[in-house]
This record gives sequence, structure tokens and C-alpha cells, in this order.
Amino acid sequence: MKQYLNVTLLVFILSNYLCLGQSIVEDFKPSTVNQPGQEYPQVNSQGYARFKILAPEAQSVVVSLGLGGAKGGTVLTKGENGFWMGTTAGAMDEGFHYYHVTVDGGVFNDPGALNFYGSTRWESGIEIPAHDQDFYALKNVPHGNVQQILFPSKSTNTSRRAYVYTPPGYSKEQSKRFPVLYLQHGWGEDETAWSNQGRVNLIMDNLIAEGKIKPFIIVMTYGMTNEVKWGGMASFKIDGFQTVLVDELIPYVDANFRTLANHANRAMAGLSMGGMETKTITINKPEVFSHYALLSGGTYKLEDIKDKSKVKLIFLSCGSKERPDGVKNAVTGLKEAGFNAVSYVSEGTGHEFQTWRRSFKELAPLLFKD
Amino acid sequence: MKQYLNVTLLVFILSNYLCLGQSIVEDFKPSTVNQPGQEYPQVNSQGYARFKILAPEAQSVVVSLGLGGAKGGTVLTKGENGFWMGTTAGAMDEGFHYYHVTVDGGVFNDPGALNFYGSTRWESGIEIPAHDQDFYALKNVPHGNVQQILFPSKSTNTSRRAYVYTPPGYSKEQSKRFPVLYLQHGWGEDETAWSNQGRVNLIMDNLIAEGKIKPFIIVMTYGMTNEVKWGGMASFKIDGFQTVLVDELIPYVDANFRTLANHANRAMAGLSMGGMETKTITINKPEVFSHYALLSGGTYKLEDIKDKSKVKLIFLSCGSKERPDGVKNAVTGLKEAGFNAVSYVSEGTGHEFQTWRRSFKELAPLLFKD
Repeated sequence: MKQYLNVTLLVFILSNYLCLGQSIVEDFKPSTVNQPGQEYPQVNSQGYARFKILAPEAQSVVVSLGLGGAKGGTVLTKGENGFWMGTTAGAMDEGFHYYHVTVDGGVFNDPGALNFYGSTRWESGIEIPAHDQDFYALKNVPHGNVQQILFPSKSTNTSRRAYVYTPPGYSKEQSKRFPVLYLQHGWGEDETAWSNQGRVNLIMDNLIAEGKIKPFIIVMTYGMTNEVKWGGMASFKIDGFQTVLVDELIPYVDANFRTLANHANRAMAGLSMGGMETKTITINKPEVFSHYALLSGGTYKLEDIKDKSKVKLIFLSCGSKERPDGVKNAVTGLKEAGFNAVSYVSEGTGHEFQTWRRSFKELAPLLFKD
Repeated sequence: MKQYLNVTLLVFILSNYLCLGQSIVEDFKPSTVNQPGQEYPQVNSQGYARFKILAPEAQSVVVSLGLGGAKGGTVLTKGENGFWMGTTAGAMDEGFHYYHVTVDGGVFNDPGALNFYGSTRWESGIEIPAHDQDFYALKNVPHGNVQQILFPSKSTNTSRRAYVYTPPGYSKEQSKRFPVLYLQHGWGEDETAWSNQGRVNLIMDNLIAEGKIKPFIIVMTYGMTNEVKWGGMASFKIDGFQTVLVDELIPYVDANFRTLANHANRAMAGLSMGGMETKTITINKPEVFSHYALLSGGTYKLEDIKDKSKVKLIFLSCGSKERPDGVKNAVTGLKEAGFNAVSYVSEGTGHEFQTWRRSFKELAPLLFKD
């Protein structure tokens, strides 16, 4: 009984120390994705976020980000000079978070932060320092380019936008051709997400500079041809987007970029809803893609895949705060069935971009191996 | 005396009819630069703008856009269901306008509108239908690409960002080389302005499709290496940016794109502060650029130019609501001195992007003529 009490006490002390009881270190700096010259929002070395918003006549200002980015939010307090300030009740998960500010019941963005397209609107973004942030940092290495293309889409009767990452030296090595990864965003996001929030171009530049991967092209486009409300995914029809991707975008990219235009050198990956799209399209079109990756985007069942010989890689990942067992078990099953399957779990992160940045870093070296 | 009265009366009636007395046509549609799926802000065929913003507990909501986009702004009125609504007191100038919303004394963006970088922050944007909007519309024509490049800058010890427009077919015609226009934004804007607000890529695509211009490359980068407050332009030193542009960016572009890397095929243009930069740098570096264009960005004096033989074109423009006489007189003087000088005045517009879109459309066909 005594021992039991001690254990309880120990757990209580620990949990307090690890979370609410922690004293805040006053080394706050502006978030790295603030608007130019803006001092707030700020983040400290422990992962706390602090906000400062001007609204002299407002009755209430609440930031949607709470402890660990979970529900609740941070209620700001009005100080003199009309500024509302507040600090998260605890350390946030490492990496990028979307947020917004509710001022007197209306939803706005933080004037201090850059905006990123998520949840079908441009939201404020903040970067919590991460122990491994070096892999997506802007470094003094050769840089690839990210270019906007407008490609004709007969099926949707418009010019659609995509972003294409070409590796460093692409424009110089006029004879060289490259494999292509088609990389999809999640629900409520768009073709800007992987480079803006995901920093995928910087991750590629850094991996290439370190000689850790074979350079390849990445193509990112909007993954919907009809609007789907959150929660309405069950009603989502893949046909429209599959036509845009397979019959319109891929031929355009192969015609306008120096690609290795074959099955062995074409991969598809996606996060969340983009993973669901990747799963469906790779199953429907096994002759088009040879490498599949679902980032927090579900798993493949054995019966999904008809022709094992067409699949060179299946990569499944998620954050440790999601359902890592589902990913691990699926990969175990796929391996037993003889697939080249790999799982990755991002420690201490949930259904957010830090999980997907890390997942991409693990995935890239596995793609297009001879 | 009778006649005098009648004239006064007539003027009074006319001015009323032309402005405040005008009855509003209820054909409002969402602005073309709203966020996806957003119904407000709206614009009508007369150029009125209507706003609708949710802020149930707010005491005051004011939109910075007023009649003609001038000072004052539009005070919104609270309706049921917590939405604040209001319509501009008159027709706005045609084209693009920046704006923001003041909620209880705090400055925020309109959650319905896309954001554009201006006045050193990401501001809401709205498009007022223009009689000539076809020239910058997205059409079913071959499209060039706009790509982000990160180029090494020793002088500022970082990788700097630029956007490069390459004309349709650039990637296919592997042997062809192109002239280059270096195109600068205005104060408070950045390298995103010309493609986002200016739609310069679409203007190029359309002019090329109509066979009205020789295709060329456009390079847009951030025009400052030190922050300069509005009104502090007198203290602005060009040296830092001139080094980045001439000694770092131009060599990088010439090394990484298929350019015609010579004086005859290199132009510089800029709007507002970018015009001031263009003027200074073209005067300092006559051996680098052969075509000069200042859009609402001042004029050249004869004594500015030492070697007339180095100048192939001087283009000066502004809106009719700015100082058109200054532009016209300067061009008259330059012509008399034997320069190939051209002036353009955008009717009914001021110091805004519609003036610069139109100016660019007039400038492009004059560049790089044999």
C-alpha cells in the first residue's frame, strides 16, 4: 500500500513536471514564419507559444492554439495600450501548426503571422522549434526550383495549377532525365501545402546536398475536382481527380519536363486525404505507379493489390499520437506477403506537418532505387 | 446671371448623377480573388464593393476601402446573425485594390478575400471588374511557368528568392535563348507582387498567344536589402540592392536559364519605388541594361544619361489620377533629344496595379525589337 501510494505520488509529480508545473523559460523569439518585421507570435525553447494582438475595443480575443495544439485554445488578456497577450498553457508539439484568432466571435488571422492554406482557408501559421529542424532548414546548398505550371484540363474545362520541384542543376544537365513523385496534400489544403508548410523543396535540397538520395522531380497539384466537406469523405469520388492526374497532368509533365516517363520511375504519395487518394489511384492504376506512400493516410490490405510484381515500394507512416500500431501491423503483413514495405512513426507528433516532413525525409531515400 | 445659375445647376446635377446620386445595380458577384467558396466580398457591374464580415460581439467594423479606394473607408452595419455588412459609397476604380478591416480598433484581413503582400504586410485584395480585364484573364492558351528560385547572395550572406517567368515552350525549345526583363515591385511589396497582383504571367501568355510580342523571360526579386519605412525613401541607399541584382542575380540567371546574356537583350523596369530603383541602377550601370521603364516611378532627365547610344528604349507611364503631365513632358524632352522614348497614361486609374498591368501591356511589345 505504501509503495502504491509512492508510485501514484511519483506519477503525479512527473506529470506535473512534464506539463503544467513546468516553469516557463523566458527565451521567446519571433516564430520563423512571421510576416516580415513582426515580433509576435513568439515561441520559446520549451515549445510554448506567446501571442500579442492589437484590438483596443475588443471584448474577447482567443487564439485557437491550446496546449499541445489540442482543443480549447488560448484566451488572451487585455493589457494597456490595447494589446491582448497570452501564452499557451503548455509546450506545443514540435513543428508547424495552423491557427486563427477569434475576435469578438469573428474568426480572423493573426496579423503577425504568415498565412497557409489549410481547412479550406488561408490560416495563420506558427513554427515550434524542433530538435530535428535542421533537415528542413534553408541552407547554403544548391537549391532546386519550385515552379507553378498551368496545365490544360479538358475533363474540368479549365487550366489547372500544379507546382513542380526540379532538383538543383536540372536546367544545366540538359541531357539528364529524372524520376517523378506525384505528391498530394490533405483535406482543406491545396497544391501550395507541401512547399509552404512542408518545406519539401528544402528537404530535397538538403538530402541531395548530403548525397542521401537520387534527385527526382516532385509534382504537386490540387487533389479535388469537386468540393468535399470535412466528414463527407465517404461521399468522395476519386474519378474526377484520377482523370486529371493520370490522363491530363502526367502526360503534360512528361511532355514538358525531362522525366523518365515509365512505371518504374513514377511514384505517388499523399498525406491524410491525399493518402486515401494515393491508395485508391495506385490500386486502380497499377501500371502507372510503382512506388506508393501513405502518410497518415491509411494502409493497404493484401487483397487491395492484384499484381505484386508491379509494386516496388509501399511506405506507410504516421505520428506516434495517431495510430502507429495500425501502420506497423499493416507493414508486417505486407512484408510477410513478400512486399517491399516500410513503416515509419514520427515520435511525439500527431496529424500535423511535422509528421509529414519527417515521413517525407524517410521516404525520399527509398524511392527509385535501382 | 441666369445662364451662370443654370451652368452651376447643371454641374451639380451631373456630379450627383456621376457619383453619389447613382442608384446601385443589384448584380453583385463574389470578387474573383476571394478565397475558395467565399461569397463575400462582392462587386457589381458599376464598380461598387460590398462586404460581409462575421463578428457577433464586435462594437465596430470598418473596411479601409472607401469611395474610389480613397481615404475614409466603409463603415459596416451590424445585422442579425452577427454579420456586419456595408457597400462602398460609390464606384471604385477598375482593377485590383488592397484593403483591410478594422475590428474594434484592431487591423485584420477580410476572411473572405485572398491576401496579397503590400504595405509590408499581407493584405486583403479585391478585384473591381474592368472594361479591359480580358488582357489579364486566365485563358485557354499555352501558359508559361512562374518558378521560385533561391539564388546565393554573398553580399547579404543568404539565399535570396526570385520568381522567374519563362514563356510557353521554354522547356521544349532546348536550343532557343531569350531576352530578360528584370521587373521590380513597389514599396511595401515583394517579389510576389507582379505575378499575384499584377498577373504579369497571364498578360505575357495572352500577348504571346496573340502574336503581339517576342517571348522573353521575366525575373522578379525583392528590391531591398535593408528595411525602409514609407516616407523614408530619401534615406534609401541603392548600393545593397544594386549589388544583389547586378553582381549576383543576373549572373545566376544567365548561368541557369537560356538567356541572351548581353546588353541589347536585358531590360529593367519597376513600379513606384521599383521605378526609382530602375532609374538609379540603369543610370549607374548603362552597360548592363538597354531598355528602361518607370511605371509611376518618376522620369529621366536628359543630364541623367551620359551615353545615348546605350539606350534603346525609355518608357514612362502613370495613371491619369497621378501626374500624367510630368510623364508626357519628360518624354517630349527625351524625344527632342533623340531618344526612343514612349509615354503611356492609364485612363481613370491612380497609383495602383491596374495602372501597372496596363503599363506592362503597353511596354511589352516595345521591348527587344530588332
